Formats: sequence, C-alpha cells, structure tokens
Amino acid sequence: MSTFTLEGWLPAQQKRVETLLAGRMESIARRSPARLAEAMRYSLLDGGKRLRPVLCLAFSDAVARASNGGGEPANDAACALECIHTYSLVHDDLPAMDDDDLRRGRPTNHKVHGEAMAILAGDALLTDAFSLLASGSPAEQSLRGRLVAELALAAGAGGMVGGQVLDIAEDRPAELDYLQRLHRMKTGALIKAACRMGAIAGGADAQALDAAEIYGDAVGLAFQIADDLLDVTASAEAMGKPTGADAAAGRHTFPAVVGLERSRQMAKDHVARALAAVAPLEGADGPLAALARYSIERSS
Amino acid sequence: MSTFTLEGWLPAQQKRVETLLAGRMESIARRSPARLAEAMRYSLLDGGKRLRPVLCLAFSDAVARASNGGGEPANDAACALECIHTYSLVHDDLPAMDDDDLRRGRPTNHKVHGEAMAILAGDALLTDAFSLLASGSPAEQSLRGRLVAELALAAGAGGMVGGQVLDIAEDRPAELDYLQRLHRMKTGALIKAACRMGAIAGGADAQALDAAEIYGDAVGLAFQIADDLLDVTASAEAMGKPTGADAAAGRHTFPAVVGLERSRQMAKDHVARALAAVAPLEGADGPLAALARYSIERSS
Repeated sequence: MSTFTLEGWLPAQQKRVETLLAGRMESIARRSPARLAEAMRYSLLDGGKRLRPVLCLAFSDAVARASNGGGEPANDAACALECIHTYSLVHDDLPAMDDDDLRRGRPTNHKVHGEAMAILAGDALLTDAFSLLASGSPAEQSLRGRLVAELALAAGAGGMVGGQVLDIAEDRPAELDYLQRLHRMKTGALIKAACRMGAIAGGADAQALDAAEIYGDAVGLAFQIADDLLDVTASAEAMGKPTGADAAAGRHTFPAVVGLERSRQMAKDHVARALAAVAPLEGADGPLAALARYSIERSS
Repeated sequence: MSTFTLEGWLPAQQKRVETLLAGRMESIARRSPARLAEAMRYSLLDGGKRLRPVLCLAFSDAVARASNGGGEPANDAACALECIHTYSLVHDDLPAMDDDDLRRGRPTNHKVHGEAMAILAGDALLTDAFSLLASGSPAEQSLRGRLVAELALAAGAGGMVGGQVLDIAEDRPAELDYLQRLHRMKTGALIKAACRMGAIAGGADAQALDAAEIYGDAVGLAFQIADDLLDVTASAEAMGKPTGADAAAGRHTFPAVVGLERSRQMAKDHVARALAAVAPLEGADGPLAALARYSIERSS
C-alpha cells in the first residue's frame, strides 16, 4: 500500500536542496568579495539534477528513521557535495581542459566571468565546501571531522581529480578495467561519498554503512554506463547516425569497449546490486530503490 | 643565558617540515595516478621558505610546552598549510592569472606539466590538504574538525581566494584601507591560520589563542610590507632605478600608497605588536619573537 512515487518525491527533494544551497551560498557571500560570490552563485545555483545531495539526504533520512541523526550535518554534507561537484564542472569546462562554451544550455562560467575568475570561483567552491562542512557546534565537531575526511578522500588525488587525470590521458587503453577504474574515481567516488556521508550523518551502524558503500559504488557505475548508452542511442535516434559526442571526442565508452548489449546487462546488474544493498534499510519500494532504477531508466 | 639563534633554529625547522611533507606526499601518491603525483610533488617539494608550517609548529611547540598537544595533528596542520599555499602559487602562475614562467628559479608547474595538469595538481593539493588534516584516530576527530574549519575559512572566498580576487580587480583603489584588507585576506589569513592552528593543535587556552591571533595578523602584514619594500629597494640597488616589478605590473604597494618611511614604520609597529603578544608565551627571546623580527629584516 505504498504511495511513494519518484515523480512526486524527486522534485520535492530537489527543491529542498535548492533552498539549502541558496542559504549556504548567501552565508559564504557575506564574507566574500561581491564579484567572486556572483561567479560562484552563477554555477552553484543553476539548477542541476542535484543527484549527490539528493542521495546524501535520502541515506541520512533512511538511516535516521531507525536511529537518530541527519539534521544540520546532513544538510551541510549535501551542500558541500554539490559545491565540489560544481567546482569540478567549472574547472573541467576551462579552455585548458574540455574548452566548453555551454553547460546546461547556458554559457560556461569562464565565458561569462572570465577565465581567471572561473578558476578562482572553482577554488573557492572547493575550499568553502569544507568550511561549511566543518563549521558547527562543538558537539558535532567529531562527526563533521569524519565527514570532511570522507569528502576530501573522494574528491582528491585518489578520487575525482585522479579520475579526471586518467580521463585526459592520451595513452589511455580501451579496456574495461581501465574504464571502470577511471569512472570509479572520476564520478563514482563522489557518488559513493554522498551515500556514505548521508549514512554517517544519519547515525549509521557498520551494516548500514556497508549498504551505502555497495549502493554508492553500484549506482555510480550504473549512472555512467547509462550516460554512455544515452550518448549513443539519443544520437542514433535524433541524428540518424550510430555514434554521438563521446565517440566524436575520442572518449572510450562502455558501449565502445564491451558493446551495447553487454553494457545494458552490466548496468542492470549494478542496479540489482544496489537494490539488494538497500532493501534491509528501506524495504523494496523506497526512494533509494527508486533512485537506483532511475539511474538507468532516465531519458537525459 | 639563552643559546637560541634563528640561524641555527630555522634550517632545522625547515628540514623538519621537508621530512613531514615528503612523507605526506608519498602517502597521497600511493592512491593517485603517477603523473598527477609527479605534478603535485614538483611544486610541493621545491624548497620554499616553509613560513606557514614553521609558524604552525613553533606555536604548537610553544603552547604544548605549557599544556599537552602538538603531535600528529600539528604535523598534519603544518603540511596542510603548505599544500594550500603551494596550490595557490600553482594557480596564480597560470596563463589566465599572472602568466608566470618562473617560480623560485624553476619553470612554473604549467610550463613543465601543461596547463590542464597544473590546474588539476592545484585542485588535488587543495583537496588533499583537507584529507590529511581530517584523517586521524577517532580520539583526534573533534580537534581535526576544528583545524579543518580554521583552514577552510582562511583559504576560501572570505580569505585567500577572496584576497586574490581583490588583487586582480582592475578598479582597485590606491588606498591604505583597501591594501590592508587585500593583504589580510590574500596572505594574512593563511599566516594567521598557521599560528592559530598550531596553537589549537598544541592545546591552547583562550589567552594563548588570542596571542596567536594577534601575532599572526601582525606578522602577516609585516611580511607583506617587507615584501613591498624589498621590491623597491632591491631593485633600486640592483637596477639603478627607483621602482621594481610591483610598480611595473601596476600593483599597488605600501610604499606607493603611503611612502617608504611610513611603510617602514608600519612594519616595525606590527613587529612590536607581535612581540608583545608572544612574550607571555615564550619570554622575550624565543623562536616566535625571532621569526617576527626576521619578517622585516630578511634580505629575500
């Protein structure tokens, strides 16, 4: 008799995140030069999918129902994750990196604010992710320190930044192992951190934290494979040719390396792994299960 | 009967910092793609003055003598400060920023490793500053959370990054208030954080923390004024003309805004303020007093 639908739940969660982000951004803006805050706001408050903060809050809510927790540390973790994700997009779009002019249909940060300011806005989003995550009451300090360690390890040289380095390497091999390692670092580490940080903020025991670990790893890979598949199939339908932007840019993708059918099967297997991990936490029909299914069923 | 001399003490402290940094860098390298670690190492282990880590450890040592503390959190704080300082130099040197080819007599990071890798190496140094600061035993987690908050606030939009934005603004006024605000943010905030973080890691009470606050603010400004003076006087002697690189680059400096004599007096006043702040902590003839004097008496 569940009345849960992702179509009703997800927009409400995204709105919850928008409100939190706007508040955190204003508190950062109060101590910042106006034009820096403007450049940060331009990219942070541009209405992305908010996948990482939504996952973080969903885990925090799922775990806190059974124990105690969530609250401001979970809210700050959600916002810190989006600050990190946003800075990575701003820096990835720079002329020296992917040299992109458009992001979500709008001019990229450096096209509007200039390259120097885009670098600095990214640096500030990255740094202040940690200031808002670490600042709280003395009673929360230990929990917040733990959240900082999770986020920094996932975002740094052994995680997201390292994955970007693997992705721009000219001699990268077209092999499944390399592709999985690359995506586990470049996007998977932060998605997994979102799940783990939500669980930690919600007061997870070792079992719930293991569930977050497995779910985050599986959903991160499923999401990436689905992205690669969309790039092929969306182009095939819309453009009448079999390959899309990834192939044109010389990127190795799951379909290119293991084929369409095996890619689809791998994505389904990852989703099954995610569903099994969170079933003990929320039953078979909760938001985490719905998000896992959505990761491969979405159309954009 | 003090046998303390800065000439004996400072090289030993710098060596202490080099050893710590090399160890931390190796632990980051173990989880990082090799070429990213190489680019990080190139700038982190290039033999700077290590002012911020030396200040951090000196405060930690001075405070811990009276109470308990220091140890690994102080060591990690020292290394995290240098990671942040190093990333800021790597990003400041980029073509879109100051476009510098040389740093400490060697080619800048992007000249050797390329612009994309220099951006990413800077991002990783910034992020992993927080991973090494936040990772420790559960008993230290609360202390480490507090250190993260100090560092992130000093380095972010309201501190170092914000100061860099003020420094590259084209409409910046040639006024003492603006100049002091700029330098308090761009270099002062991190120097003050070095002092405060050392004190906190050493187990400072409120009084010792106040001393670190005043000393850090004063030494930060004294150091910057001395830099500006060196740029004028070193050029005047070496080049036979009255202005140096700052004036050529259109930078506002303390000598340009308030004159040579008043700049010298301001620097001396800041040093006096620093000496008064730390006298109760270490007496009149300790390393912190010597470092404050050195900040304006150095020749490079």
